[in-house]
This record gives sequence, C-alpha cells and structure tokens, in this order.
Amino acid sequence: MTIASRPFSVTTGPLPASRKVHVAGSLHPDIRVPMREIDLHPSAGEPPLAVYDTSGPYTDPDVAIDITAGMPKPRQAWIAKRAVEAYDGGVVLAVDNGHAEGEKAVPPFPLRARPYRARGGAGVTQLAYARAGIVTEEMEYVAIRENEGRLKAAEGRDGESFGAVLPDLVTPEFVRDEIARGRAVIPGNLNHPEVEPMIIGRNFLVKINANIGNSAILSSVGEEVEKMVWSIRWGADTVMDLSTGRNIHNIRDWIMRNSPVPIGTVPIYQALEKVDGIAENLTWEVFRDTLIEQCEQGVDYFTIHAGLRLPHIPLTARRVTGIVSRGGAIMAKWCLSHHRESFLYERFDEICDIVRAYDVALSLGDGLRPGSTADANDAAQFAELDTLGELTKRAWAKDVQVFIEGPGHVPMHKIKENMDRQLAVCGEAPFYTLGPLVTDIAPGYDHITSGIGAAMIGWYGCAMLCYVTPKEHLGLPNRDDVKVGVVTYKIAAHAADLAKGHPGARLRDDALSRARFEFRWQDQFNLALDCDTARDFHDQSLPKEAHKTAHFCSMCGPKFCSMKISHDVRDAEKGMADKAAEFRSGGGEIYRQAGE
Amino acid sequence: MTIASRPFSVTTGPLPASRKVHVAGSLHPDIRVPMREIDLHPSAGEPPLAVYDTSGPYTDPDVAIDITAGMPKPRQAWIAKRAVEAYDGGVVLAVDNGHAEGEKAVPPFPLRARPYRARGGAGVTQLAYARAGIVTEEMEYVAIRENEGRLKAAEGRDGESFGAVLPDLVTPEFVRDEIARGRAVIPGNLNHPEVEPMIIGRNFLVKINANIGNSAILSSVGEEVEKMVWSIRWGADTVMDLSTGRNIHNIRDWIMRNSPVPIGTVPIYQALEKVDGIAENLTWEVFRDTLIEQCEQGVDYFTIHAGLRLPHIPLTARRVTGIVSRGGAIMAKWCLSHHRESFLYERFDEICDIVRAYDVALSLGDGLRPGSTADANDAAQFAELDTLGELTKRAWAKDVQVFIEGPGHVPMHKIKENMDRQLAVCGEAPFYTLGPLVTDIAPGYDHITSGIGAAMIGWYGCAMLCYVTPKEHLGLPNRDDVKVGVVTYKIAAHAADLAKGHPGARLRDDALSRARFEFRWQDQFNLALDCDTARDFHDQSLPKEAHKTAHFCSMCGPKFCSMKISHDVRDAEKGMADKAAEFRSGGGEIYRQAGE
Repeated sequence: MTIASRPFSVTTGPLPASRKVHVAGSLHPDIRVPMREIDLHPSAGEPPLAVYDTSGPYTDPDVAIDITAGMPKPRQAWIAKRAVEAYDGGVVLAVDNGHAEGEKAVPPFPLRARPYRARGGAGVTQLAYARAGIVTEEMEYVAIRENEGRLKAAEGRDGESFGAVLPDLVTPEFVRDEIARGRAVIPGNLNHPEVEPMIIGRNFLVKINANIGNSAILSSVGEEVEKMVWSIRWGADTVMDLSTGRNIHNIRDWIMRNSPVPIGTVPIYQALEKVDGIAENLTWEVFRDTLIEQCEQGVDYFTIHAGLRLPHIPLTARRVTGIVSRGGAIMAKWCLSHHRESFLYERFDEICDIVRAYDVALSLGDGLRPGSTADANDAAQFAELDTLGELTKRAWAKDVQVFIEGPGHVPMHKIKENMDRQLAVCGEAPFYTLGPLVTDIAPGYDHITSGIGAAMIGWYGCAMLCYVTPKEHLGLPNRDDVKVGVVTYKIAAHAADLAKGHPGARLRDDALSRARFEFRWQDQFNLALDCDTARDFHDQSLPKEAHKTAHFCSMCGPKFCSMKISHDVRDAEKGMADKAAEFRSGGGEIYRQAGE
Repeated sequence: MTIASRPFSVTTGPLPASRKVHVAGSLHPDIRVPMREIDLHPSAGEPPLAVYDTSGPYTDPDVAIDITAGMPKPRQAWIAKRAVEAYDGGVVLAVDNGHAEGEKAVPPFPLRARPYRARGGAGVTQLAYARAGIVTEEMEYVAIRENEGRLKAAEGRDGESFGAVLPDLVTPEFVRDEIARGRAVIPGNLNHPEVEPMIIGRNFLVKINANIGNSAILSSVGEEVEKMVWSIRWGADTVMDLSTGRNIHNIRDWIMRNSPVPIGTVPIYQALEKVDGIAENLTWEVFRDTLIEQCEQGVDYFTIHAGLRLPHIPLTARRVTGIVSRGGAIMAKWCLSHHRESFLYERFDEICDIVRAYDVALSLGDGLRPGSTADANDAAQFAELDTLGELTKRAWAKDVQVFIEGPGHVPMHKIKENMDRQLAVCGEAPFYTLGPLVTDIAPGYDHITSGIGAAMIGWYGCAMLCYVTPKEHLGLPNRDDVKVGVVTYKIAAHAADLAKGHPGARLRDDALSRARFEFRWQDQFNLALDCDTARDFHDQSLPKEAHKTAHFCSMCGPKFCSMKISHDVRDAEKGMADKAAEFRSGGGEIYRQAGE
C-alpha cells in the first residue's frame, strides 16, 4: 500500500543462517520469548549460538507481516486480566496532526482499540507489582530473554563491574527485586500490547536506543516505519519517535502498532506543535492533554525535562554552547518568558498520576546536558541532576518507573564522574546517556566520537545508550545512517558487557574468534553484528565462492597468513612438546620459560 | 606518468580555508616548521587556528609536486654536517624485487643518491646526541611543531594524565631530555632527508600510524603512493609500508622518496620473499642483508619481532587464535622447524649495530599479541613483553632509539594493565599499539571496535596508535578505507590528548563549538577533522548555499532548534539577571539555586 503517496514497505525475513526460536516460561507457561539461533558450519562441531533478538516478528518467516493490521500482541491477555478498564479515549483532533490536510495528510492507522487504564487508583505498573511481590509475565519474560538460552555462566568470565551485580543466571525473582528497588525498568504501556518485554538496568545487558522521526523539513511516515523496523533488525532495544511537524499523531500511530520494541517520545515536541511552535504559549493544559493522548496511543516512555528549573538557567550564561537539548531550550524559553518556575517541575506529581495509570515510564530529560566538551560537568548540568534525583524519589513514591537521561559531550576523563554522581544522586535508577561524545571536532563521525564515550559509560554502569548517527550535528539520518548508528552502539554496549564481566557476553566473541582461526568464513560473517557488511567487504577483495573456504585472506595472501602459519606451528608444537619434556628431564634449558 | 601501465597521480592542494605557514627555529634559524592555519569567518572575531600538519608539501601550493623527482629534503644539510660518510651502497638485485620482469616490473625510482652511514663508530642517532647534551635540528623542529603556534597553555586546561608530564610549552631542551631518557623517539633515517621531523612519546601529542602496502593478491605502486599521500593528508603521522609480493624494493623506493613522514617496515616480510615464502629457509644472512638494503633506502623504523623466543611458543598452545602477528607466526615457524632460539633474539646486538649507523629506530614487535579478546593479557603475551623490556635496555646501551608494539584484541577492563606493565617493564619507552579492539564480533566495523580501545590506551599513556580500517580481518583497504581509518584514529588520539589534559588540545574543540553555537556552518566544516565529509553530509539534507548561513539545521528545523532558542534565552537572561538581583535583594526565593 502507499500512504500519503509514498511507497510503504518494510524489511522482513531472517538474517543469514539464523532461525527464530521461542522459549516458554515456567511461572507463566503461555509466554514465548524469542531468540535468534545462528547455525554454524558442521565442521565447527558446535551447537547453534543463541543471541538476543530485538527484531520482532519481522524476521520470523512464520508470521505474515501486514503493516495495516499491526503486530501480534503478546501482552494483550496478560494486561486484560489486570486491574484495568477499557474506555473510549480522547478524540483525535486536527491540531494533533498539525492540521495536515489533503495530500499532505497521513491517514490514521486503520484499527483503533479502546485504550486501557488502571481501574480506580489501582497500581498496575511493573514497579507496583514488584513491590507487592508479584512476578509479572513481563518479569519472567525478560529473565528468560537476558539469559539468551544459557544454562550457566560462560567459562573464563572475568571483568570489572564497578559495583554492578551480574548473576550467573537471571531469575524472575531477581528481575522483580531489581524493579522493586528502582534499579531497573520494564517499559510497557498497557496500550502497547505488541511489545516484546525488555529490561533496562545496570545489572542486565546494556541496551541501546535508536532515534527516528521526521522533522518539519524532511522524511515521511513510510520511511519512519521502515527506519523503526530496520533499526530493530540490527539491534535497537527501544526506539524514540522524535517527530515534529505535521501528522505527528498519525505517524506515531503507525509506528506504535507495528513496533515490538518500546517506543519513547518527547511529548513537549507535540505540545509545541499545538501552540504553533511558540514556546511562550505552552500551557500545562496543552501538555497534559498531549500526555494523555500519547498514553492512550501506547507510548512506553516519556522524556520529560522536569529537572530544568528556573534557577538553573543563569548557570548556563557563560557556556560555550548554551542549552542544546531541544526540550530543555523550549522550557528555558518558557520559564524566562513568564519569569516563572517550570510547569513540568511544579506539576510533576500530576504527571506521575497520569502516567501511572498506563504504566508509562518516565525518562527524566537532561535539558542542561553539555553541548560541547567545554561545558561538560558544569554547575548547570549537575544542578539539574540533583533535581532529577529529587524527582526520581517523587516518581517512585507513586509507583512510577523512572530512568535518568545523561550527556552529551564529555571528554573521557570526565565521564566516570557522570556515572558515579548519577548513581549516588538518583538512588541507582537506570542511567540513559546520549553518547557521550569525547571530542567536538569530528562532525560526520559522531557515531564514533560518541561510541567511544558510550562504551566507557556503559562499562561504568550506564544501562542504556542512545545512539548517535554519522549525521549528528549535520542532517537527518537516512536508513544507512540508522544502521551505522545502531551497529556502532551495539559494539559499545557489547564491549561494556564484556568489560563488566557479563556472564554470557563472551560466548559470541569466542565463537567468532574460533571461526576466524579455523577459516570458517561463512560462520565469521554470520556471527558478526552486521553479517551483510562483513560478507560484502570480503567479497570486494575476494569475490569468488572458493575464497570463502580459503585458508588465507586478501590482506596477506597465502604465504603471509599468520593464522595459516599458526596452524603449522600448532602441528609442530605437538612434536615440540615431546621434545621439551625430553630436554627438561635431561636438564636442558632451551625450553625453559624466558624470565624463569 | 604511468608506472607498470597504471595511472599515477596523487592528491594535492590545500584543505578548505587553510594555509600552510612555517615557523622558523631559534637555535637553528634555518628550520621551517610547517603548520596549517584555518581561517575563520570574520564574524567570529577570532584569529586563524593553527593546527598540526602532517600533510607535507602536497598541501603547499608553493611547492611544485613531481613524483618522479621526489620531495624537498629539509634534513639534507643537517645530516651532511654530522659524523657521516656517503658510500656506494648495495646493488639492487633481482631477488629484492621478487624477480619481477617485463610488464609486471615496477621501474626503479629515477634518482638514486649514495647512502649515508655513521663515520666509523660515531653515534649519530638522536639518542646519542641527546645523551651528549646536543639539541639537534630535529629536536628543535619537533618542539616548535608540538606547540602548534601556541604561546601558552589553553585556558581551562584539565585532565588526568596517569603520570604523563605535559608541559605548558614544549622546549627543545625538554625534547632532548625526553629522548635521552628513552621516553621519546624521533624516527629519521640519515637516508630519509625528506622527513619533516616528528616525535613519538607519552609526553607529547598522541600520534597515529597508517598501514599501506600491496600484497601478493592486490594493489600496485601508484595506488600505494597515493594511499601514503592520502593518509598524511588526513593526519597520519607515520606510515608503515607492509608490502609483500614482487617489486617490494622498487615500490618502497617510490614511497620513501615521496614521503615527508617517517616510514616503517617489517623487514622479515621482504626477507621471506627472498626465500620464496618458506619460513624455514630464512637465515640471519638474508635478514641482515635486507636490513642493510632498507637502511640504505631510508626506512625510518623497523618492526622486529625479536621478543618472540622459542620458550614462549608453547604458551600459545591453548589460545583461541594462536599467533596472529604475521612476523610472529613466521618466526615461530622458523624456531619450531629448527628447534632453535630465534635468530632475531640471538643476533639482537648485531641488529642494533646495523641500525645505529643509520639512526633507524626499532619498533619491537609483539609477535604474540592476542588475536581475540579471549587471548588478551595471557602468559604468552606478557612473557614476550618481558623480553621486549630486556631488548629495550640492550638497544639503549647502543644508543638505538626504540619503541614497543602492543596489542591487539583486548576487552576494556584489561587495557590499562597493558599500558601499566609496558611502562614498568620497558622503562617508559614509547608504546605503540594496534587498537586494541574491544570486541571480536564486529568485522566490517573494526575501525570502531579498535578506535574505542585506542582512545582509552592513548589516554592511559600510549604514544602512537596504529590504525585499523573497516576492512580489517576481511580484505585489503582501499583509499576510502584508509581515510576512514585515519580519521577514526585522529579522533582516538585527540580524545586521548583532551583527557590527558594536553595544554593545547581543547583549542580546536572550543573553536568548533563556538562556530556551532553561532551557526557559522562553514567554520564548523573547515575546523572538522574531515571537512569534506562534514560539508557533504550537511548538503545532503540542506543543499542550498543559503542553508550554510541558516540559523537552524536539518535535524530539527527552525522551531525546534535548541541553539536558536538558546540564543533567545541568552537575550532574555540579561533581563533575568537584573530581575534576579532585584528578587535577591528583596528576599525573593525563586532565583535561588536549587539545592541551596
């Protein structure tokens, strides 16, 4: 089909040598947790490697994908039996779509369910259940998912976790306890039953987020849905829809109904559209109505810049790059125009009351994050962080799940202070950072400048890393940029898991390294984070099919292949080991360890 | 012209908005140190920014580039007046070029000078001069170069240097002292007068190396010379020619005579070619003759895997990826075939005697570096490192400049141990690492997996970072891959300089951040590490010339531009500051700092 006169198709089908498998629950036998199994060549003598799978039904050949019908709804039955009620929900107004008309209007998603909300004042958030000692379906689901099919920790596990506690196996009870402590979040709106549950917390696998969204200048609904599908194909754990401009409600509807991963938004963007982009004209009422509209649609987490207070603004006066968060800048402008404290801060308890009825998690925005390394770790940033700590406790008091957004641009030597302060100030609520970028001088490569910082802060304890694409600071990312951003951040997250000593992280590295050493080229490609690019790069040098079984590669050619020689060495070592034993018993010295 | 029937052209001309300037010496008034000045828009009210310039005469419009005539020779007069003698040098044999004939033969470089060597046993290395208290032309040159036109340290300098000592300004005497202590190296063969001197050491700017070189499978001389020119255009401080296959001597000749940066090689590669690729047939004599051949050509540093000893080899038996260094694998095979200790180890003093006569620096190779994160920091690796420490002292005893090669594949939590051990074991001789790659699972993106590790080990004290391109493990890098590798490593090196608190590192970041905040798009592009890509990415979204002066960008559009709003906020702050003073004096609370 086409929407708004543009072709509308998404990428489907399994990744090479990969199968979708499902693991059932024990406490909740009806849950089916998806994983991806990568088959290895028979010569490996190894079972398939199970890996975490964010891609949803799009890579499952058993599921017929129909974008106009939306995704399967694994959570529907679980939600329906909770203390919830369906109701009529708000009417979509023309202003919700920026008064888009005619050819420029995106049609609404064809199906509309009546939204759910908590019945009366019932606590239906994962945090409420966890505190009540209840292990929800979502909790068991993520426990199984985090173990990636393992029955024990990998051998040779080591690491420096900086205080994170990574059990050999994640149990449903461990998940419940982490959520009850506020150390982890399972984002999942009652009205997003399509979600395959995932968990964000320091004691779990490090997650990544991909941003999509059109702007007033570029892009359209078909491209945005495909960007979502494409980003989860390569590993995005959550997706934020940062759309601005017209059609914002309807575009989001198409994304929500087709997304198996949690979707986050920044509601102030849509609220600003409703007041024609004039920050001064924002009101609590417009914002509140926007929150409810998005709660009913199923948005799983909201970035809300409630920590940026009026007294913080003068602290930015001498900054090199002022306020670079869009939400932060909008609120700062509102505060100064009215000479008033932020309504997001003043109404924070009311915000919590709204979102708790849908179990929307709050992602407390860092409106004063540094936009340059010069501004890193300054008084403005840390004053806001202190307020975020205060708000965290207020959210928890209302059973609202919460995590904390962080910077930004930070040179390497100042990264750890961000993590340490956040843990201390926010009571170990999960941290969710944008990069950080470790230098400002590489526009066009900011996926890399930020990937360095992301790997480090992930190691130090950051729970989720918000990706940065090569287009950061320069333009809106296209589909290729989205993939590069996602893969870069999978690298950062995985490097962090390895360094933390995650009990299963090294399995994939070791499997790929064995494939490399044994010249199993196809296995090497299939185990790679980006199998297609690995294969393509190899084919650019050695296109023939025979080269994929060659015992050398194009860098060195056969004579200079260290791995080939290394196999010869290994064969010779057998003889040498015997020789060494002989020498040692005879008092020979030559095989003694250097330095002995 | 064409060589071997292929077109032969190199990239010349200045980078955008950039001028080549030269700074004269004081001790040595005839030295002219090149720098690149980047002009900013008049509205910035800022002087041009001087940056380190590795690109040589190729970006100088005042120099006529003729590849068949070679580069200017800034060091020629300095070298000629030292205790050196010109002599006839060896005759180039057919075997030196792998018996390449006819159409497949690369012609020799048209000009051949008689090589220099030390007269008698004179000490003509930079280390010998430094120990004698002599500040050479090269020492003053690099002192000026390291300061990048600064007269003082940048304001707001901070950092964590892990024991590195970074003076506000580098003086020639500081350089001499660092070299005398063995903590820094100025690679510069007597027979490479074309070199613009540079320094490698922990207390100087972090440097990067780019590898080029054909293999038996791919590439040719024209492409290799252009890869060298291209890599220094984007910032490579040294270049290693890792060619194997035929024409190896003549290709290197073309590279040497046209390179303003130091060139490193791995002489065992050519030696292996001379014995038809059969490692067992290598002899000390073949290796020695190869060293002399390359000394006479002007190679500035040799990677020699003399630290891989016979007793180390069994330590690799249980590794996941065995021996992955080509030189290491070759020598391991030789040792096992002959059941003998390595001739590189046994003849190390003779090697030192040869190279000291030409001032070729030794880069002690890590033949047992880990080829997978599983093998990182193992007994084999550290046993070899201990031997490298022993060899360092033996080289120093003969006034030979030396630095140490390091890994490889290392997860983040094991990186610092590599640096700390190397400093301790090798008496603070400069460390030169390949990455390290912090995970094995991203072939196709190993510039990024390794860029993360490179930034970190650079911060911890590594003096030079050997680049990795996206083609690592998969194929031979082309020109585009070389650029991506170089820029990624400039990011890593610069991020390290920033985090160490280098006194000038932040100037470029701050200039670019100011340009960003003031919507000086052209300045933002021109100050970027890769100006062309930054401009191109911007043009993909907003191609019109007017957009380059727009006070917003394509990510957000005008209404959502945080920087635009931030300017409005700044204007409003003036009024607010007055208001705040009024409130405070009146006892008002609203503008008091949160948390006060």
